Amino acid sequence: MRNIVVGIDIGGTNTAIGLVGGAGDILAQSILQTKAFATAKAFVAAVKDTCNQLVVGLNEEVRLNCAGIGAPNGNYYNGEIAEAPNLRWNGRVRLAAMMEEALQANCVLTNDANAAAIGEMIYGNARGMRNFMVITIGTGLGSGIVVNGDVLYGSTGFAGELGHVIAVRQGRLCSCGRRGCLEAYVSARGLRQTAVELLEDSKQDSLLWELDRERWNAKAIFEAAEKGDEIARKAFAITGEILGEQLANAVAFSSPEAIFLFGGIANAGGYLLNSTAESLDANLLNIFRGTVRVMPSALNDRNGAILGAAALARKEFCQD
Amino acid sequence: MRNIVVGIDIGGTNTAIGLVGGAGDILAQSILQTKAFATAKAFVAAVKDTCNQLVVGLNEEVRLNCAGIGAPNGNYYNGEIAEAPNLRWNGRVRLAAMMEEALQANCVLTNDANAAAIGEMIYGNARGMRNFMVITIGTGLGSGIVVNGDVLYGSTGFAGELGHVIAVRQGRLCSCGRRGCLEAYVSARGLRQTAVELLEDSKQDSLLWELDRERWNAKAIFEAAEKGDEIARKAFAITGEILGEQLANAVAFSSPEAIFLFGGIANAGGYLLNSTAESLDANLLNIFRGTVRVMPSALNDRNGAILGAAALARKEFCQD
Repeated sequence: MRNIVVGIDIGGTNTAIGLVGGAGDILAQSILQTKAFATAKAFVAAVKDTCNQLVVGLNEEVRLNCAGIGAPNGNYYNGEIAEAPNLRWNGRVRLAAMMEEALQANCVLTNDANAAAIGEMIYGNARGMRNFMVITIGTGLGSGIVVNGDVLYGSTGFAGELGHVIAVRQGRLCSCGRRGCLEAYVSARGLRQTAVELLEDSKQDSLLWELDRERWNAKAIFEAAEKGDEIARKAFAITGEILGEQLANAVAFSSPEAIFLFGGIANAGGYLLNSTAESLDANLLNIFRGTVRVMPSALNDRNGAILGAAALARKEFCQD
Repeated sequence: MRNIVVGIDIGGTNTAIGLVGGAGDILAQSILQTKAFATAKAFVAAVKDTCNQLVVGLNEEVRLNCAGIGAPNGNYYNGEIAEAPNLRWNGRVRLAAMMEEALQANCVLTNDANAAAIGEMIYGNARGMRNFMVITIGTGLGSGIVVNGDVLYGSTGFAGELGHVIAVRQGRLCSCGRRGCLEAYVSARGLRQTAVELLEDSKQDSLLWELDRERWNAKAIFEAAEKGDEIARKAFAITGEILGEQLANAVAFSSPEAIFLFGGIANAGGYLLNSTAESLDANLLNIFRGTVRVMPSALNDRNGAILGAAALARKEFCQD
């Protein structure tokens, strides 16, 4: 009987659920709409149903060994989600314990970026590395920091919140209520706002003017950049410049050998990746020059997060 | 026969050398002027002579067990000092190996702030803590970061250079050649420059006007603050505000349970300590509120660094 691990990636919009085999092969997967569930209880019940359906669909007898969850504001130490601004469930939710009861299997939880880092370490480009970090760029910006081969959790379990380092003093208002956070500049929302500011300040020609304002999103900006649009390319360049500055600070902190960018915006066309790498180089302290590379994640978005969550569970519970 | 450990703290100006007993008691100590030695070879010979004299002075037979060195830009991994801007010896100096040969004892080297962190962990206020950091404030700003009970060295051995995170974009020129580094604001030099800017911009009354400009140093600013001087107090307040902002970023990175400030300026009169703690609280991301304290180091300057270097050696080599 085959042992499988469940990987669950909870995002503000979608939750991806996958059954993962021993070699990191995703045997089956499905998607739930996170926001469709008003309570965590209803959500957990739906995840359980989905798992059962996926197992039935395999047409083979398997043992559901353990489960790993990546979730925004997920805390590895206590298995709780705490005050996640992008989820409907307020306060502290004891999700790992609830899922453990529902699935009747050991369950471990961490934040989505930490899960991505573990996925990168076990199945991706960080194999064999002991000091690296993964920056996940989507609606917001997350980070998973690996030090001496272990994810950095700190005293609270919440270490690695690089989305909320202050990138610009007295800068843009962030969704966390403070000003100037990295995430307010480097994220789908941040990229959009930078493009809006460039358009409105310059009144320069741009393909984006041909779209309704509400369609100025990351995808539209990418498509315009692909067609050579100057404003769109500049928006990516500014975003990468700010990210590179903050990554230079992060290198001064933990001196990783590589920084992986994860997420669609991060890798699309290399615009962000290249300007980030350039800005990092320009801003590094001399002793770190040539010691760190910026690279794309080897795991594509959805699978990477499922694999990361499954890898976390495997690292925690399984010896198979 | 008693086992002793040599602790060597190399600073830009002075080098302190101490013989340390098993309980962290400094049995004898002496000071050399670092800048008096044009070559590392001459310096190592002088350290050896000093050690021999100190041992003779003990009037008891001892075994010199091992030695630890804290040095600016010291690298734990390879025992080298690399391009230290405050030392006369250029390039890379293989100091640990040279000292090992001279003293005929095992020798380990790290940077001075890491040594202070180990001293704090073994003999100071961080006993029992697994996640904390020490910020050393003197001519420059250094940091020793402890994660899961170990000093964070990263892939290069140079992790924990918080003096060179960018605190102010396009800000003051730093001695490292870049702009806006934390050290350009939070250090003896930074405090002085802030006071100079306040004096020149405001033309406000201040006790500092009664001194020659070249005497506007950290000590004079502290003394003026003690007498209620507004400019002097404001200089400390601004320094603490900037430090608190960057510590809030550092907390988002590694989530320590405490941050210790080490060095004369850090603790004098509580001016910097209090404004730093206040700014940290104001700038923390909500999930970290109430999870981290700013505290003075338990080790006074010179002894702390000797004890830290000795503690490093003890941790590395001795089981006594």
